[in-house]
Amino acid sequence: MIKENIKKKGVDIKVKKVGILGATGYAGQQLLWLLRNHPNVEIEFIASYSHGGQDFSRIYGNYFGEFTKVCIPNTDVKERLGDIDLLFIALPHGKAFEITQMALDRGVRVVDLGADFRLDDSEKYEEWYGKTCDGKKNLSEAVYGLTELNREKIRESRLVANPGCYPTASLLALIPLLKRGLIQSNSIIIDAKSGVSGAGRGSVTQTLMCECSETIKAYAVTTHRHTPEIEQEASKVANEEVKLTFTPHLVPMNRGILSVIYGDLKREIDDESLRKLYEKEYSGEKFIRIKEELPETRWVKGGNYCDISVKVDKRTGRVIVVSAIDNLVKGAAGQAVQNMNLMFGFEEATAIDFISIFP
Amino acid sequence: MIKENIKKKGVDIKVKKVGILGATGYAGQQLLWLLRNHPNVEIEFIASYSHGGQDFSRIYGNYFGEFTKVCIPNTDVKERLGDIDLLFIALPHGKAFEITQMALDRGVRVVDLGADFRLDDSEKYEEWYGKTCDGKKNLSEAVYGLTELNREKIRESRLVANPGCYPTASLLALIPLLKRGLIQSNSIIIDAKSGVSGAGRGSVTQTLMCECSETIKAYAVTTHRHTPEIEQEASKVANEEVKLTFTPHLVPMNRGILSVIYGDLKREIDDESLRKLYEKEYSGEKFIRIKEELPETRWVKGGNYCDISVKVDKRTGRVIVVSAIDNLVKGAAGQAVQNMNLMFGFEEATAIDFISIFP
Amino acid sequence: MIKENIKKKGVDIKVKKVGILGATGYAGQQLLWLLRNHPNVEIEFIASYSHGGQDFSRIYGNYFGEFTKVCIPNTDVKERLGDIDLLFIALPHGKAFEITQMALDRGVRVVDLGADFRLDDSEKYEEWYGKTCDGKKNLSEAVYGLTELNREKIRESRLVANPGCYPTASLLALIPLLKRGLIQSNSIIIDAKSGVSGAGRGSVTQTLMCECSETIKAYAVTTHRHTPEIEQEASKVANEEVKLTFTPHLVPMNRGILSVIYGDLKREIDDESLRKLYEKEYSGEKFIRIKEELPETRWVKGGNYCDISVKVDKRTGRVIVVSAIDNLVKGAAGQAVQNMNLMFGFEEATAIDFISIFP
Amino acid sequence: MIKENIKKKGVDIKVKKVGILGATGYAGQQLLWLLRNHPNVEIEFIASYSHGGQDFSRIYGNYFGEFTKVCIPNTDVKERLGDIDLLFIALPHGKAFEITQMALDRGVRVVDLGADFRLDDSEKYEEWYGKTCDGKKNLSEAVYGLTELNREKIRESRLVANPGCYPTASLLALIPLLKRGLIQSNSIIIDAKSGVSGAGRGSVTQTLMCECSETIKAYAVTTHRHTPEIEQEASKVANEEVKLTFTPHLVPMNRGILSVIYGDLKREIDDESLRKLYEKEYSGEKFIRIKEELPETRWVKGGNYCDISVKVDKRTGRVIVVSAIDNLVKGAAGQAVQNMNLMFGFEEATAIDFISIFP
Repeated sequence: MIKENIKKKGVDIKVKKVGILGATGYAGQQLLWLLRNHPNVEIEFIASYSHGGQDFSRIYGNYFGEFTKVCIPNTDVKERLGDIDLLFIALPHGKAFEITQMALDRGVRVVDLGADFRLDDSEKYEEWYGKTCDGKKNLSEAVYGLTELNREKIRESRLVANPGCYPTASLLALIPLLKRGLIQSNSIIIDAKSGVSGAGRGSVTQTLMCECSETIKAYAVTTHRHTPEIEQEASKVANEEVKLTFTPHLVPMNRGILSVIYGDLKREIDDESLRKLYEKEYSGEKFIRIKEELPETRWVKGGNYCDISVKVDKRTGRVIVVSAIDNLVKGAAGQAVQNMNLMFGFEEATAIDFISIFP
Repeated sequence: MIKENIKKKGVDIKVKKVGILGATGYAGQQLLWLLRNHPNVEIEFIASYSHGGQDFSRIYGNYFGEFTKVCIPNTDVKERLGDIDLLFIALPHGKAFEITQMALDRGVRVVDLGADFRLDDSEKYEEWYGKTCDGKKNLSEAVYGLTELNREKIRESRLVANPGCYPTASLLALIPLLKRGLIQSNSIIIDAKSGVSGAGRGSVTQTLMCECSETIKAYAVTTHRHTPEIEQEASKVANEEVKLTFTPHLVPMNRGILSVIYGDLKREIDDESLRKLYEKEYSGEKFIRIKEELPETRWVKGGNYCDISVKVDKRTGRVIVVSAIDNLVKGAAGQAVQNMNLMFGFEEATAIDFISIFP
Repeated sequence: MIKENIKKKGVDIKVKKVGILGATGYAGQQLLWLLRNHPNVEIEFIASYSHGGQDFSRIYGNYFGEFTKVCIPNTDVKERLGDIDLLFIALPHGKAFEITQMALDRGVRVVDLGADFRLDDSEKYEEWYGKTCDGKKNLSEAVYGLTELNREKIRESRLVANPGCYPTASLLALIPLLKRGLIQSNSIIIDAKSGVSGAGRGSVTQTLMCECSETIKAYAVTTHRHTPEIEQEASKVANEEVKLTFTPHLVPMNRGILSVIYGDLKREIDDESLRKLYEKEYSGEKFIRIKEELPETRWVKGGNYCDISVKVDKRTGRVIVVSAIDNLVKGAAGQAVQNMNLMFGFEEATAIDFISIFP
Repeated sequence: MIKENIKKKGVDIKVKKVGILGATGYAGQQLLWLLRNHPNVEIEFIASYSHGGQDFSRIYGNYFGEFTKVCIPNTDVKERLGDIDLLFIALPHGKAFEITQMALDRGVRVVDLGADFRLDDSEKYEEWYGKTCDGKKNLSEAVYGLTELNREKIRESRLVANPGCYPTASLLALIPLLKRGLIQSNSIIIDAKSGVSGAGRGSVTQTLMCECSETIKAYAVTTHRHTPEIEQEASKVANEEVKLTFTPHLVPMNRGILSVIYGDLKREIDDESLRKLYEKEYSGEKFIRIKEELPETRWVKGGNYCDISVKVDKRTGRVIVVSAIDNLVKGAAGQAVQNMNLMFGFEEATAIDFISIFP
């Protein structure tokens, strides 16, 4: 591992200790993969609901011989909070409230990859998620962890609500338009497509290979929980209320999200001007790549990049923004590491500084 | 084969003779597959540009031992027109003009699966396809072969312009709304997703398995040639000019198109009322299935069905229509057979009356 | 449907009534698909362990609007035996003993797609399957339903043990060599590869798309339960005891089995002579296709064919036989229909007389 | 990139300069991917036959913004030999002879990923490859680059013939048995399965997604060019002539090789003893992992590992060895880097020290 190589060379390196709660899900495992290569991080423990007591490398055979930790049960995490500087939580919604409170009380910082602290308004949470919000007192402190949007706040934060995968791809594509008031705020439609890993590792019929390898479907049309999350952040950026239509799809690939966004332009503008405007907005952002070519998820698979292209449909006066991310990296674990790097003052790209392995 | 079984039983059956031009492409081959099972059709010849002189079952090994015809060169078709009642043309655009004229002159009816006779306006054809329209004199006679829309005209037609795959899925989903003036005619956005067979059987890097099996992309954004075709027919149905945004995608599956259509509702209406309205519109249509559940391409793969579901996004006042077809069947060869059945007075569902083989 | 078409024409047709036990698994569903198109069969009931009381077309959406039967619970089948002429059983091993006895007692013929009546020797069953054989008294009556091997016995049989998918592909490839004593009986190695549908529709982690779409593995090495089944039938054909090595694999595709078989030749022979010998052996067999080209599962996908090619490795004195079938058709439901056709005196290819839909 | 990070910290690092010939094929590109992360390597140039003059990041979009080199034409390489310490060649067979001679003459070391220097016997090369061997004078100097077998020779070598993908997987699995004379040397059968990237990036019909995504086939049965390569090295290890049967397959996945090897044991031995023997043989080898569980290609995808499991089939007296590698990494570019590391005295695992990204 890179970490050890560097240490061997006698370079003095700051190291922080972290734990991962929910390490055996796809996002948790991706997080572990990234953190193992992080020169400034020690993984103190990994915890799992379903695999407590099991050798991690028996669950994910790629770790065989290279990673020997045994999963502790989720319930043991509270006793291990004293050992760590930061806790990553990768659990289903509703499961992060209690342990987050405990962690903060112990002075442990938290990056929550789930949805529990993303919505500012607890009523909205309860309406869309159908669960009681048991973390109200921490909502105001939680920083929405879309790195490129909230970098400075994240640095100082004790609690980062890591964005959802669809919101990450969609907001990064929308921000330059919203900031400049270039589109009608009520005209936005997001048609997003996700690989199957977004549905998680639970054993359900609908994600069996035979059920989803030769098909595409839209799902949760008009009701997907990422809708209020996107609207909340879009509204802040636009400085007016944004209500939009969001349609997610399940695509027969393992990884990747492609988000295609439609909006009515308020004034005439051409492709090139828009692209320059995007390049300016994201100038200096390593992980945002503005392309002339239309993005494809293969070019970001496994990496932390968000590729964006923007086109004007002159015939109809609409703009079409296409963005691509890896749902498990920039859409989850990669952005979580990016945020942790900010929180600890590490170089922001540490351990996520590689491009997609292709094919 | 079913055809022979029935004949053996001594039932008297009307038989028509057909030829297929472009039989070795994916659409041509699908057409051959269907016609082999048609009790009223004799396949007189199959022609191929790239495989003239070759045994068809060497190209498509599933036919081994069951189909012994050799492909004739495309150029030989004109001499064989006297042998057939109807010619199917499955060629790239620009290639159908001359042979169609010859066929019509010889009293042979034509179903063209390509684009050459779909657009009423030859200037639009030349603008979007970048080719001279050499078939102007036949444009007014050509009937747009969306079966459910133009059934009666198709019966009498000598020349049917079989619709594109995207337009088939999109128009069938839009027609009930357009007919009733339920949506703003300038608000329509079509976000459509196609399997790789839609890109054809040509050997190009971008459809190699390694290049497209783990990725999704949008392509031809704002410029796809099916746009004017959809607009033309939508405008006729709506009785006003429809300009819309159309975005196609390439999805890592072999077959299928999912079309997701957004429009602004002119008045409030709920899901159930809309669904009933769709059911009424398509009452009696065997191949249109209105579903509460969202369509998935797997349920129509290999079949001639178009599954449609319609949802209202109350929060934004939009309607979202989702439709699924098999691009090679209802989107090409199946609809061509359906049209031929009408033209010859056969039962409309003959030889296309089966559901998807799954998984 | 073809069935109704024919009836409408007033042809007099013999019709038999059947039931399907285990209709919602992949094999059961494939069987239903085939039987719906069978002109001489009425499906009286379909039964399901997990989906009793549910509309079949809600489970498999391709049937929507075309098939309206509700699954009865498996436990209700015994009361419906009086309504049928034949019962198809598609259940896990150990579940067919009791209902088979009941069916036979009622004069209902049985085709069991499971393993319970395949092994002649109940001790072998108990050793390899780890279950008590509760059907001993019916073992001697059961006919091993490899159609091409046992056609005459099947015609008269009350109880057909439909072969396993791997044994079907492997035995059809081996029979010509074994019959003629061309290979050393102790030299046989079968390296077989199956699509994921062979693992069934149960919700288990290992058949999730993300877990098996980009990987291949061997499994059950030296211990797979199809080993004694292949050995039993191979030994009968060879007229000496055959012990062989069988290695199955899971391949990232939905359907298909490719079986590659190695054996030491007893004497020199060349490719062409061997191929002719195979052609002679299977002369007149519609569903066995001897090819010069190496078989590929795509050419038999969805069809009832078994494609076979045979090659001599002169350098080592070995023969290599490659066979391809669709595991759900020739390897399960298709062969079951083929056997039923024999049992009822229907034309053998009825309802299975179509080639693979490609791609 | 890691390289720059380390340099910034002021650590003194030895750096070598390399060029890649054939950089736009799948193996060449994988090599570039790995070398970019290598702290001791500068990529001086990349050359391409088909893409000379093009920006590499236009061909492989994952490099966009991160790698700005333009491909030089292959023909320009000879003029750039003075700039480099080592040349990687990733060209079709027959293309490496001349440039290798030029490089050696200029004092540039060579790692050839192709087949031109793998066979010791030029007649065998000409027989199996159907080309004249124009590199005879360098054959004796070339070291067969199976790292674990020839580590010490590789260190000193000027010319390394990097092994083929199938031979790498097969030989690593066979060596412990052959060294100890545990199997009959004439009993070996290798049944190997490869992902589609092994077929290269050329635009040919048979590797189109639609043609190979739902199928498996054996190919080049008895005639594959990797046969003499495996036999040559196996014979050296066994110290007797080994003739074997090798059957490759094309599997619908992008990456990975699974090699399943059968051999007759000379004496009784059980699974555990054999596994221990393998563990001992490969003790200290980072990239060889002996597993109880059967290997799956997903656990090595993208990594440089070779996972091996060994099972005894007591009933037949055979041993079955299963090995898995990534064809583009351990089977090509990864092993090339491993060899380069040895040649330059770098730590052997540098830049290839990471595990598979999953899923």
